[in-house]
Amino acid sequence: METTQNPSGEDSLIARYFKPLATDPGAFGLVDDAAVLSSSGEDIVVTTDAVVEGVHYLAGDPPDNIARKALRVNLSDLAAKGATPAGFVLTLALRSKEDAWLRPFADALCEDAKTFACPLLGGDTVSTPGPQMISITAFGRVPQGRMIGRTGARPGDRVLVTGTIGDAALGLDVLKGGAAASALTSDPAARDFLVSRYRVPQPRNVLAPALRDHATAAMDVSDGLAGDLTKLCAASGVAASVDVTSLPLSAAAAGLRARNVASVETLLAGGDDYEVLCTVPPAQCETLIAAGQSLGVAVTAIGTITEGQKPLRFLDGQGQDLLLTRLSYSHF
Amino acid sequence: METTQNPSGEDSLIARYFKPLATDPGAFGLVDDAAVLSSSGEDIVVTTDAVVEGVHYLAGDPPDNIARKALRVNLSDLAAKGATPAGFVLTLALRSKEDAWLRPFADALCEDAKTFACPLLGGDTVSTPGPQMISITAFGRVPQGRMIGRTGARPGDRVLVTGTIGDAALGLDVLKGGAAASALTSDPAARDFLVSRYRVPQPRNVLAPALRDHATAAMDVSDGLAGDLTKLCAASGVAASVDVTSLPLSAAAAGLRARNVASVETLLAGGDDYEVLCTVPPAQCETLIAAGQSLGVAVTAIGTITEGQKPLRFLDGQGQDLLLTRLSYSHF
Repeated sequence: METTQNPSGEDSLIARYFKPLATDPGAFGLVDDAAVLSSSGEDIVVTTDAVVEGVHYLAGDPPDNIARKALRVNLSDLAAKGATPAGFVLTLALRSKEDAWLRPFADALCEDAKTFACPLLGGDTVSTPGPQMISITAFGRVPQGRMIGRTGARPGDRVLVTGTIGDAALGLDVLKGGAAASALTSDPAARDFLVSRYRVPQPRNVLAPALRDHATAAMDVSDGLAGDLTKLCAASGVAASVDVTSLPLSAAAAGLRARNVASVETLLAGGDDYEVLCTVPPAQCETLIAAGQSLGVAVTAIGTITEGQKPLRFLDGQGQDLLLTRLSYSHF
Repeated sequence: METTQNPSGEDSLIARYFKPLATDPGAFGLVDDAAVLSSSGEDIVVTTDAVVEGVHYLAGDPPDNIARKALRVNLSDLAAKGATPAGFVLTLALRSKEDAWLRPFADALCEDAKTFACPLLGGDTVSTPGPQMISITAFGRVPQGRMIGRTGARPGDRVLVTGTIGDAALGLDVLKGGAAASALTSDPAARDFLVSRYRVPQPRNVLAPALRDHATAAMDVSDGLAGDLTKLCAASGVAASVDVTSLPLSAAAAGLRARNVASVETLLAGGDDYEVLCTVPPAQCETLIAAGQSLGVAVTAIGTITEGQKPLRFLDGQGQDLLLTRLSYSHF
């Protein structure tokens, strides 16, 4: 029960933990119910992604990692769309307001908001008896009409992907004590690397302007490369052929692959990569790869867009078709 | 497990249920991860509010009512800010994808999106083992710099509120089998009216342009009139005096008040009203009330803004101070 003139618990929570993140004038220091996104003619790109305890992160995951993942899965969408981050709103569904959890959560969110120039604009804090959930809607800006969609891939375009693929799925397997955990008992560095790839995505926002200049279509890889490329191709009315031997793998993932601990399916359909998948006309392929190199982001060509709406082809080193039994992670 | 070339369950769910709501060209028919809000120099107003099963609605509430409430609590914020609805994004955390629940939910959301000209721009569907949750971020447009904030209330301004106050709190009491339920056993019409006020808010979006023209500060009443007015006054650096006898009550609420079933505190601090609370210079008070009348929205003067940052005063019919033991609903 509140005393007569005290602010409500919810208001104190927001002010106490999240005001330092509300650096944009349009956030009004979080004292209003609404925020303002000003625009001088650019398009505002909107994306929304939620993370749920037990689904997108594990109950025992460090709160600072959870905060970063919640924001970064959205930043990853903005990167793939070619948008410059402009801010975000946050819905926190919490069981309790334990300082030991909220303090590192808020501090990490604050740090990431600064790093990615993406200030908090507003939010809502609600209590839940169930698993915690963090829902973020993030905003970015692109010049008018310049958001990179999913529908522009054309036959002949090369298929490119940033970073490395499959690490997060293997990291989750490590955390769950699966085959990857057993295989890496004597290699804590590889284990830690894979777990960090699951817990803290590295969104490729620095690449957004170059993507805008070169990509005909793009999306971020969140539910597994194979399934996400299938979606992109379906939206563009094309097919694709992927050379599985050219998949960019980290040393840890390549090691597990060589020992047959990691299947091609785990790598291609595992999810949680948060890398950018894009299609680029062949003539601009090297330019984008070079742009990535100068920005410290590996960009790798892994296949080619083909005609028609046929099933995607995944080819092994001998040019033989691999048959995948699943393409992606699905919530239902 | 998915078969190789089928779309994922999540994609089918979004396409099946929510594509009809995605009428805005910026929604790209929900095939992209992101949407575009175009702007020709207006400000984009952003607001976010979540509803949680067991907290903001009851587990057995009809799914169509839940859909309407989830969207309307956000529309109510836009109305209070003087903004014209532009669209919304939706995060659904569901335990299952039962058609018997999702179909009426989606149909009602579709209907409301049309009624309030607020199309779906995108969303995220996640599975949760816990209570369901619907998080909506809504967007509106105002001419540049014209969003109505909380900080503009000035001494001498009149305090006005739309509709009637306290119905939703009494409706919740009816649903929980409290004193209001017992008192209304022989009056099903009053019971149904109060329950509908709890389940389906009536956002005052038609009043937004008039509010923009006349209000110095505004917010929607969601956590209880007393607490929300306290917040508005704190943000403006003023105090207020409220004449409790002038509170607009529905016939059902007035009846329960007269029989001492409903306390002043239940009415003033109960929450879930989703009416607009605003402050207006005395000279413009009648104009706003008349504008409301012509639009079918009751607007009632209930008090006056005073100087200083003193506690709010709630006066009874004899001009005596009422001491409230609580001001609002708080989640923590």
